[in-house]
Amino acid sequence: MPRYALLIEYDGTPFLGWQRQKDGLTVQQVLEEAAAPLNGGVEPAIGGAGRTDTGVHAEGQVAQVELAADLPVERVREALNTRTRPYPVSVLSVARPPEEWNARFSAVHRAYRYRILNRRARPGLDLGRVWHVPQRLDAGAMHEAAQMLLGHHDFSAFRAAACQAKDALRTLDRLDVSRFGDEVVVTVEARSFLHHQVRNMVGTLAQVGRGARPVNWPRAVLDGRDRTRAGQTAPPDGLCFTAVRYDPPLEWPI
Amino acid sequence: MPRYALLIEYDGTPFLGWQRQKDGLTVQQVLEEAAAPLNGGVEPAIGGAGRTDTGVHAEGQVAQVELAADLPVERVREALNTRTRPYPVSVLSVARPPEEWNARFSAVHRAYRYRILNRRARPGLDLGRVWHVPQRLDAGAMHEAAQMLLGHHDFSAFRAAACQAKDALRTLDRLDVSRFGDEVVVTVEARSFLHHQVRNMVGTLAQVGRGARPVNWPRAVLDGRDRTRAGQTAPPDGLCFTAVRYDPPLEWPI
Repeated sequence: MPRYALLIEYDGTPFLGWQRQKDGLTVQQVLEEAAAPLNGGVEPAIGGAGRTDTGVHAEGQVAQVELAADLPVERVREALNTRTRPYPVSVLSVARPPEEWNARFSAVHRAYRYRILNRRARPGLDLGRVWHVPQRLDAGAMHEAAQMLLGHHDFSAFRAAACQAKDALRTLDRLDVSRFGDEVVVTVEARSFLHHQVRNMVGTLAQVGRGARPVNWPRAVLDGRDRTRAGQTAPPDGLCFTAVRYDPPLEWPI
Repeated sequence: MPRYALLIEYDGTPFLGWQRQKDGLTVQQVLEEAAAPLNGGVEPAIGGAGRTDTGVHAEGQVAQVELAADLPVERVREALNTRTRPYPVSVLSVARPPEEWNARFSAVHRAYRYRILNRRARPGLDLGRVWHVPQRLDAGAMHEAAQMLLGHHDFSAFRAAACQAKDALRTLDRLDVSRFGDEVVVTVEARSFLHHQVRNMVGTLAQVGRGARPVNWPRAVLDGRDRTRAGQTAPPDGLCFTAVRYDPPLEWPI
């Protein structure tokens, strides 16, 4: 059956994350139900590159679907976007990937952005889209601490108890912390991540930003490989799955 | 009684606009109810600089309130932000204005931003925050057309039927149209606006952007002073009340 790649944007607020759940609505379910009419009325399986958690957003999730019919990519996009209404899920583009391509296993690079609203007043406009930290954060100190986590390590210290990965060895390619006015933005890139890894790293860096821990503490936590020593898991609100890269790259028609 | 000025941010999506209504929740009501405990249990009147419509957002609304007690401004902000939960309304700052100051009548300058999402795919992340226009817009042509509306004119052609202003004479100081990737952003400034004036101007400029009307058409509509000749009223979603200026300026403590 013809395989399609989907580039997807969503607001995670009303969803129990990407992956199908028995007890509530997920992004995967919204898309699979929307795709049924393109597949002879049968809901196809739609697999994503990243299984975002409850409340986590995406502007560059990638997924795959096989459909019974050989359809123009533009038609697949329009049909899905008509049927995902009124949910905040939108298919930005549809491509025809190479034969062996798999949205999750062919991915060679993933990027996330984490937004912290760093001001006294709680969020009004960006409620659900940022982590509100009222105490002033030192973004420079957070960035310095972050650089000591780059490279190939055992990230057990930043892994969720429920994480199902075989091992905790990952290569962190980028972990930048920058201030833009009232916002502190963390940009993180790697081939793949452990469950809650980004949120646990952000929660740990925030302890440095607040001045509660020294700049070399996150590295000491990493080396200790003990989750109980790290900072809090930062809330899902601030997290957005921004991009997935493949090799060879997928070409997305506009 | 001591008078306070409030700088307010809100997501307009769940509200029937700023002004109190009998049939649904408004931003004014949320704030007045939140302020009651600071005023001996009695809800004070809170007047805004602009009466934003249903679904219109604000990142710089200004309002005034008189409270029975003389309180530190920081305490007023914290008390209001604790009690406006869980609504997407946040008081960014509180100031003590001069004796004769009035949030609405002392304002000498108001600014709005209008966001158009100009791509085929409907909004996912910014649903409710942008006007989705799938046909490609020529932002340069829209900007050129907009410049012909600047200055002191009778804006009857861009006024809502329900507008209660005594006359339609207004001075438009700025009307810029710029493209940022998939977004076309309209920035507009004036001392004051008529009801629906910004949304009617945006809807009219969009007709030029689509190529349905020539660049000089919005000016011809203005000169005709006939509302029925203008373009559609652009939806509230894309509109955000960004700033109010006073003379002398209000000093906002952080």
